[in-house]
Amino acid sequence: MRVRIDLAYDGTDFKGWATQPLLRTVQGELTAALHTVLRLPDDTLRVTCAGRTDSGVHARGQVAHCDLPPEVPAEVVGRLARRLNGVLPGDLRIHRLAPASEGFDARFAALWRRYAYRIADTAEAVDPLDRAYVVAWPRPLDVDAMNAAAARLVGLHDFAAFCKQREGATTIRTLQELSWTRATSGVLVGHVRADAFCHSMVRALVGCLVAVGEGRKDAEWAADILAGRRRDPGVVVMHAHGLTLEEVGYPDDASLAERVEQTSARRRAEEVDG
Amino acid sequence: MRVRIDLAYDGTDFKGWATQPLLRTVQGELTAALHTVLRLPDDTLRVTCAGRTDSGVHARGQVAHCDLPPEVPAEVVGRLARRLNGVLPGDLRIHRLAPASEGFDARFAALWRRYAYRIADTAEAVDPLDRAYVVAWPRPLDVDAMNAAAARLVGLHDFAAFCKQREGATTIRTLQELSWTRATSGVLVGHVRADAFCHSMVRALVGCLVAVGEGRKDAEWAADILAGRRRDPGVVVMHAHGLTLEEVGYPDDASLAERVEQTSARRRAEEVDG
Repeated sequence: MRVRIDLAYDGTDFKGWATQPLLRTVQGELTAALHTVLRLPDDTLRVTCAGRTDSGVHARGQVAHCDLPPEVPAEVVGRLARRLNGVLPGDLRIHRLAPASEGFDARFAALWRRYAYRIADTAEAVDPLDRAYVVAWPRPLDVDAMNAAAARLVGLHDFAAFCKQREGATTIRTLQELSWTRATSGVLVGHVRADAFCHSMVRALVGCLVAVGEGRKDAEWAADILAGRRRDPGVVVMHAHGLTLEEVGYPDDASLAERVEQTSARRRAEEVDG
Repeated sequence: MRVRIDLAYDGTDFKGWATQPLLRTVQGELTAALHTVLRLPDDTLRVTCAGRTDSGVHARGQVAHCDLPPEVPAEVVGRLARRLNGVLPGDLRIHRLAPASEGFDARFAALWRRYAYRIADTAEAVDPLDRAYVVAWPRPLDVDAMNAAAARLVGLHDFAAFCKQREGATTIRTLQELSWTRATSGVLVGHVRADAFCHSMVRALVGCLVAVGEGRKDAEWAADILAGRRRDPGVVVMHAHGLTLEEVGYPDDASLAERVEQTSARRRAEEVDG
């Protein structure tokens, strides 16, 4: 039986999602907790997620799936979220865990991933209670200028200028949304949504727009960077801790299998980050 | 010259506001930073706040004042907030620092203090990113029942049932607001406003209402507790980390001196917690 797991984590003390030997990762902690609670031998289970977040990146709306072996009784699933939360550390919480719809795949069925990037660019907006996930920036940022530049980046493009290159992997993506709003607290929130992202893409896009927001660069420069398809030293990859995976979008149940078919073969071949 | 200091802190690693020997407190850190930045000898300055928060309690809208000696040049004040933030730790931030209006006193001029108490009573509402200031509660709470009981407690009463008794101190307060809302995140937020609070009063009020929210008690019981004017073992003082001082209200400048006159003599005599 496949289960869908909706989860959230404070990425501060995790070396990202993906299991790595000797390092504390979200996948590692979650997989270990599942083995413990279900009393299964090590390496029985594999957990797959929608967005493989980097070291220090947070998630409020991460989605994963896991195939449970037939010896796990169905009635255990209803209590699994609570039991996992009982053994997991406070920086990793299960929001929901339930049998997945037919054809569901956390990674390949996803239509889009939505991230938020948070910046406090004035002393008054810096809230020490939220400092784990809001970057304090020492200079004020012009949100209108950032939005003007962001508009030039939205759409289907080759985002090579904002991606860490990988052998044989495409950097063509559909950037569905890239915009900034100022919350009532004064915090600037960048809303970033795409079918998928390549490595460090959101943080490089934000770095580009922060240069515009400071008035050092303009929208034309941002458009030129995109068109150049090469990393530019003027684009800084922003701190990981400002970035949070907020939500993953899936089609309705009837379209899940079709979506998985569309994306899985292509994306597996390309080794795209989710 | 008197300056008004608006500040915020994550109370997790502070033993409350008030300076205590050998312990890390907000007043202690802030006073030390002022001495450092202004290069003044130890014990030159004294910082007074509006709400002397307990150990582990947070503040987003704390207000303090400090009288600077005449040798501090006036032009230093404009840069003081930035310089303090440069030496203060990340869990204590200055939002604003400016010359205070004539007659201002952070403690005695305050008209009211507003606190929030935050509880996540479902697995889905528990956000690991906000776990420092939201209490995770294992049972669902009935917000309507809590509001019905809260309405019985609002007004001018003797809150002895919810206060740690102190010799010679009154426990009569005007509770201006006590109500609960559920945020879009699912988190329950208690809004508590009064002219002043006695020690542990907010957390005892919340403990009383949580008993009602769980269905263990009803609004009548809460009203009886208040009328009994004695601490009741059924009322638990809730965890400090769910409590945040959100805002302090002051009269307009023309009324500051009158307000200070009204409150200072009475409150100094009574040793009331701010």
